[in-house]
Amino acid sequence: MATVRLLTDDELSPEARAVFDDIRAVRQTEFVNNFWRALAHDPVTLKRTWESIKQVMGPGALDAKTKEMLYVAVSIAHGCNYCIHSHTAAARAKGMTEAEFAELIAIVGMASETNRIVTALGVEVDDEFKL
Amino acid sequence: MATVRLLTDDELSPEARAVFDDIRAVRQTEFVNNFWRALAHDPVTLKRTWESIKQVMGPGALDAKTKEMLYVAVSIAHGCNYCIHSHTAAARAKGMTEAEFAELIAIVGMASETNRIVTALGVEVDDEFKL
Amino acid sequence: MATVRLLTDDELSPEARAVFDDIRAVRQTEFVNNFWRALAHDPVTLKRTWESIKQVMGPGALDAKTKEMLYVAVSIAHGCNYCIHSHTAAARAKGMTEAEFAELIAIVGMASETNRIVTALGVEVDDEFKL
Amino acid sequence: MATVRLLTDDELSPEARAVFDDIRAVRQTEFVNNFWRALAHDPVTLKRTWESIKQVMGPGALDAKTKEMLYVAVSIAHGCNYCIHSHTAAARAKGMTEAEFAELIAIVGMASETNRIVTALGVEVDDEFKL
Amino acid sequence: MATVRLLTDDELSPEARAVFDDIRAVRQTEFVNNFWRALAHDPVTLKRTWESIKQVMGPGALDAKTKEMLYVAVSIAHGCNYCIHSHTAAARAKGMTEAEFAELIAIVGMASETNRIVTALGVEVDDEFKL
Amino acid sequence: MATVRLLTDDELSPEARAVFDDIRAVRQTEFVNNFWRALAHDPVTLKRTWESIKQVMGPGALDAKTKEMLYVAVSIAHGCNYCIHSHTAAARAKGMTEAEFAELIAIVGMASETNRIVTALGVEVDDEFKL
Repeated sequence: MATVRLLTDDELSPEARAVFDDIRAVRQTEFVNNFWRALAHDPVTLKRTWESIKQVMGPGALDAKTKEMLYVAVSIAHGCNYCIHSHTAAARAKGMTEAEFAELIAIVGMASETNRIVTALGVEVDDEFKL
Repeated sequence: MATVRLLTDDELSPEARAVFDDIRAVRQTEFVNNFWRALAHDPVTLKRTWESIKQVMGPGALDAKTKEMLYVAVSIAHGCNYCIHSHTAAARAKGMTEAEFAELIAIVGMASETNRIVTALGVEVDDEFKL
Repeated sequence: MATVRLLTDDELSPEARAVFDDIRAVRQTEFVNNFWRALAHDPVTLKRTWESIKQVMGPGALDAKTKEMLYVAVSIAHGCNYCIHSHTAAARAKGMTEAEFAELIAIVGMASETNRIVTALGVEVDDEFKL
Repeated sequence: MATVRLLTDDELSPEARAVFDDIRAVRQTEFVNNFWRALAHDPVTLKRTWESIKQVMGPGALDAKTKEMLYVAVSIAHGCNYCIHSHTAAARAKGMTEAEFAELIAIVGMASETNRIVTALGVEVDDEFKL
Repeated sequence: MATVRLLTDDELSPEARAVFDDIRAVRQTEFVNNFWRALAHDPVTLKRTWESIKQVMGPGALDAKTKEMLYVAVSIAHGCNYCIHSHTAAARAKGMTEAEFAELIAIVGMASETNRIVTALGVEVDDEFKL
Repeated sequence: MATVRLLTDDELSPEARAVFDDIRAVRQTEFVNNFWRALAHDPVTLKRTWESIKQVMGPGALDAKTKEMLYVAVSIAHGCNYCIHSHTAAARAKGMTEAEFAELIAIVGMASETNRIVTALGVEVDDEFKL
């Protein structure tokens, strides 16, 4: 179920097409996934989001695989099934092993458990953790 | 504000004390943070949680710093202020640089943004992302 | 997948039927959507929920379109796919343009991003924002 | 920090005062907690919310203690610190023991953990669980 | 859609098989639901999760039906459709009536409403609710 | 509690200072709120976030007040106390009346309630709501 139609390449505005061209160039594949096809109705947000993704997920202090794994962890916490699938695929493509994926899931589960227990207990931050 | 009192070392049951002893031994410090002092009212959950944390956060396929950063990411998504502080401190202690922390935060923000946009649009998972 | 069956008009209790009659009268359509058919197993909650919806979403300081758009924004943040679809349909019926829908989605995404960044950084409320 | 001032008894509109009178009569205490004092700026929502609370939390199939414990569990999952404190106090007043509270917390933690693991794995609902 | 395949009994490692044997023995049924089949790729997390579930959901201060209802409430708040279905089935199997389920849903809804209203208003915890 | 220090004007890097200058110019005030002072440790994210905010919250199909109200609604759903305060202040500055704020809160509450009830019931999207 979707609230907007996915756009085919033939239906793109020139602004959206330029973003798709860049996605294909950066990722070195013809494949453009559904997220961008849904977002292409709004070329301004499409362009801003793609430029932001390129900056945030591009080369930096953290390696590409770790970045994708952090993305997956947040997507699980937010219950975004599409995002879990797309970024798990990306993490695997960037070298995440099944053992690492299993550990990621265990950590997300464990954090979720203690996040809620801490909230239930109303634990005050220790002075040792303050700046 | 808390829903239970923090227990001092003198108030611990023998079962809780044994867990505190193990926390101190494993972490090689006398400091036991407030989370465990709040949880110590329930020695069974205290012990199970500590044993689980040791297993999940112990040596494995992912390094200790990456594990703590995943923990922080989930804690941000769940809005657990205490957990953000305690696990950011742990990640820093395990070598997370300020540049890495900044990237972590940017990724959590970016993922949060696209998680909700994807949900709003109702994007279907691409066949390419299916097993 | 559902945890209760949808009730047809023929299966309604008299109390539930009276609510359906009012839904049809207020909305001036024979169509009663699935939410009410699922909720009709519990006529007391059905009636209370419908009366509340009528009050909250009825004429007031905010116009009907803005009210539905706020409803959609919250439903996205909570990940309720059904609610996103039903209230997006309602917002469109009340005049929301596709350009407005695109802006709504961009705002929800932006707010989600900064909500989590603020939480990560632990920013204190400025005195200027206090009452 | 608050976005509205708490109203004292002297500042209430007649409509809000009538709700406060009923809260005091039903609960058999002079004490009216801050939630109602913040909500009293909007007597219509104040009245609707109180009437709904009375209906939902009043006598029914579930006993009063179990109802408050369910309220606490949801409040933990939503990270509402005020609600956790007010409904934990209510649950204790209605007979929740510390052992029961500890089990509630353990269940909320466990459910949070498996909720996220299931979401990560994308587990399909078994036919056995379908209606 | 799933991020891992469900394992059949024939594909289990010896460690995973031992957990499945215990699930079958404790639950006194041959049926092992999909959650465990997805988790079985990681026998260590499988075993830890099952042992934790047994401890948390086993005999204690709260009866089995109430425990499952708390699990359902949290699963609703977290939007885990699988978990809602599996634990609603479990709660029904342990005696939850349809009237009790209807009240559970009404309470979850009511708590969600007031949780967000309290957060919007920024209500401070009353001294009366502090320890 | 914060995980990074707030930067004063004197501590800003030239890149961060340039963003602060633009914030002051666009908003026509010397006041720069804490969010930007916490984010200023990472001038790249600071600049990207400010540019995005300017684009998303700038002139468009929706008026400035409605945009801020949508921002507030999402911030409530995500439990970001800082964001609720800063964007409620912004919405008020852009003309939101107290009656409109009260309706916003009532809608967020109502949506939260039905979001969770729909999720509990597992309601399928009506064909009428599909594209």
